[in-house]
Amino acid sequence: MSKDTELTATESTAAETKLTTTATELTAAALPSGFAWGAVRAGIKASGKTDLAAAVVLKNKAGAPTAGGVAVAAAMYTSNRVVAAPVTVGRQHLLTTGGRVAAVLVNAGNANCATGAPGIAGCKSTCVAAAESFGCIFDEVFPSSTGIIGVPFPAEKVVAAMPELKASLGSSAENAESFARAIMTTDTRVKMAYATVAAGEADPAQNGLQVKIWGAAKGAGMIHPRLGEPVGPPHATMLVYLFTDVAASAEDLNAALRAAVQPSFNSISIDGDTSTNDTVLLLASGASGATLSKALAPAFETALGEVCRSLARQIVDDGEGVGHVVTLDIQGAATDDDARLVAKAIAHSPLCKTAWSSADPNWGRLLAAAGYSGANFEMEKTRIRIGDQEVFEYGVRAASFDEAKAHAAMMEREYTIRIDLGAGAGECKFLTCDLTAEYVSINADYST
Amino acid sequence: MSKDTELTATESTAAETKLTTTATELTAAALPSGFAWGAVRAGIKASGKTDLAAAVVLKNKAGAPTAGGVAVAAAMYTSNRVVAAPVTVGRQHLLTTGGRVAAVLVNAGNANCATGAPGIAGCKSTCVAAAESFGCIFDEVFPSSTGIIGVPFPAEKVVAAMPELKASLGSSAENAESFARAIMTTDTRVKMAYATVAAGEADPAQNGLQVKIWGAAKGAGMIHPRLGEPVGPPHATMLVYLFTDVAASAEDLNAALRAAVQPSFNSISIDGDTSTNDTVLLLASGASGATLSKALAPAFETALGEVCRSLARQIVDDGEGVGHVVTLDIQGAATDDDARLVAKAIAHSPLCKTAWSSADPNWGRLLAAAGYSGANFEMEKTRIRIGDQEVFEYGVRAASFDEAKAHAAMMEREYTIRIDLGAGAGECKFLTCDLTAEYVSINADYST
Repeated sequence: MSKDTELTATESTAAETKLTTTATELTAAALPSGFAWGAVRAGIKASGKTDLAAAVVLKNKAGAPTAGGVAVAAAMYTSNRVVAAPVTVGRQHLLTTGGRVAAVLVNAGNANCATGAPGIAGCKSTCVAAAESFGCIFDEVFPSSTGIIGVPFPAEKVVAAMPELKASLGSSAENAESFARAIMTTDTRVKMAYATVAAGEADPAQNGLQVKIWGAAKGAGMIHPRLGEPVGPPHATMLVYLFTDVAASAEDLNAALRAAVQPSFNSISIDGDTSTNDTVLLLASGASGATLSKALAPAFETALGEVCRSLARQIVDDGEGVGHVVTLDIQGAATDDDARLVAKAIAHSPLCKTAWSSADPNWGRLLAAAGYSGANFEMEKTRIRIGDQEVFEYGVRAASFDEAKAHAAMMEREYTIRIDLGAGAGECKFLTCDLTAEYVSINADYST
Repeated sequence: MSKDTELTATESTAAETKLTTTATELTAAALPSGFAWGAVRAGIKASGKTDLAAAVVLKNKAGAPTAGGVAVAAAMYTSNRVVAAPVTVGRQHLLTTGGRVAAVLVNAGNANCATGAPGIAGCKSTCVAAAESFGCIFDEVFPSSTGIIGVPFPAEKVVAAMPELKASLGSSAENAESFARAIMTTDTRVKMAYATVAAGEADPAQNGLQVKIWGAAKGAGMIHPRLGEPVGPPHATMLVYLFTDVAASAEDLNAALRAAVQPSFNSISIDGDTSTNDTVLLLASGASGATLSKALAPAFETALGEVCRSLARQIVDDGEGVGHVVTLDIQGAATDDDARLVAKAIAHSPLCKTAWSSADPNWGRLLAAAGYSGANFEMEKTRIRIGDQEVFEYGVRAASFDEAKAHAAMMEREYTIRIDLGAGAGECKFLTCDLTAEYVSINADYST
């Protein structure tokens, strides 16, 4: 089982996972069956780039590009109290259909948030147009938006682009990549990951069948997802779309998604700002012929977890102005919750993050942030390591502390800061990044 | 009663408050009796500037510069779990003496934090030297340190400078200003404020007596004070020293300090990082002859509150890289606690703070931060005003929204963002600032 070295996932015996970020690496054979993707320029982004994307479920499961099929869906939304119109509408659609989606419609360049009744009406009018165009019913359209908040939503541009969007649909690697590219805002790179599960290795009754998972995501600011429970009470401007061709019940799909999201999207932060639009959607077409049996579930969940961790890592790596990707490995906390408190305090500390930007081994700032995090620990029992350099142990600077070596460890694009609080068995891993003058400049000039 | 226009304090009938930031404006007549101040270069700051300051209580209350007196003290420390050695030692001293202080010893350039047993021993050795030099007992010395965390504390430099420090003591405006200047780290300006209370106007029994309050403070990063309860359970690298010549019990002094700190130092944030060294100390010499009677207390508390608010505002105004000082005026929250949640979420949002740096009226970021703050409210009942410009009302962009006018309002050095959540009667005012590339640059290059 080959595995990309960039993955830090747990070992999997039945899943082969490969990261890819360009369409030239992705082949149609790696894509799940039963879906078609497309994208066009609707004129929403000021840049004139593609800004309207769709994914549709195919009726002919053999792969002919005929829309009109329906997939089982699991979705998780932001826990922000302020939510965008498509979040309100999409949640209602999932409740109405009991978790069925025929088409995903995503625009970038306008978040359709804080746009009032006209925003809701505009969102619904685009769903109506999509249903007509793609041959499904209104409630089976899953809408998403990302971009600036509070600017009236140009529904008419979306509606006008629908024929061209339909014409762009296809199941090739280029089609999938066009979907992933159109949903970008300040992202500099397309974010995709896929995995394949040999169903028969996990469940002999399904010998010869292969389950494929492909996902696309966008960041790159207002990234500190805190995704709520799936569907029932489901709300990011992180948008993640996951597609698989396994056959599964909505309940099993939700369980798999919940397990995959906590250590991935819910364990990253770029700037600590939780968006009004964060959405993770998982669609299962069933076109592989394989079923998410009890025997297959662990392998499927491992593969889904790896795809999610890869996408989460890609989001942080492409965060606004990011120079360094830092894994916070918190151990020895009184509880797992305490470990997360420490990780989040450090991940949101401007003093820690600015020190990282210049590779300054100022571990006192890490300690101070842990101290105000609310976690229960004693400085005298605490150890801090940056990369493989001990910097602090048991109340004082480590005897072996070597500023030049610690600085060198922090000059790497990616490194780990490990903090052992000596207070218990609680732990967590959290992925974050530095705070740079470029981040400030990007967000002081925001006008996408 | 004249009042400086920069103050936004509540009206006071018996307190005359004047802000001053330079020694040329401050006269000895404005300083409380019973204290002497001084400062020297001990060689702790790499810059070679003055870095060791002392304040001593005088024995001869008429004002002759003879050390050896004792003042009643009230102190509040940071609630950070990780505390510096002088915080541990100073707290113990206050508990031992029951709240009596004869001398304050402050160094800048080294925080003496995470320095282990040698740090504690070093702090104590400087207290011993100060007690010998100033003629008081060991426990009556109140130590403070500010600067970098985790670097061994050079106690020998402090001890060696003691004779020169004693020789520098005096009660002139220049002496007081030298104290305020030596405690600075990344501060660009000296921060002082004073107030005078005509005791007889509040309490006829004390006719003719005047109570004076003078305070000095330093910021300018790691500023988000969360000061705990006074003394008993008392820990910034915000340091604030307040001196008054009223006679008061430790209990009454603590009550006055607690009331003054909540709306001032505990209602500001520069970067959201709560220091391991934050300290606010209030000393009362009793040298004015006036007593903090029940009748005098309200006027004294008003004056103390104005001095604290002025110093808090000066700290934010001189925050690292600050271009704009923003007052968050949160109203209509379900509770006062909810109002503080919204204010703190906005004050700590990199996206809100970077938008302020370019005067970008991107109110969607304010709304998103309020949404994830944890406060209970509905977007449809919420209104947002920037300066005198309505930008958002009841779920949508305000009909009168004028981007150019809102931008102009944000070009001011100081302005107010008012958010009415429409959920109740809870409210708070919170003072914060923008996040600039200069802040990043200052903290990426930290080496004070």
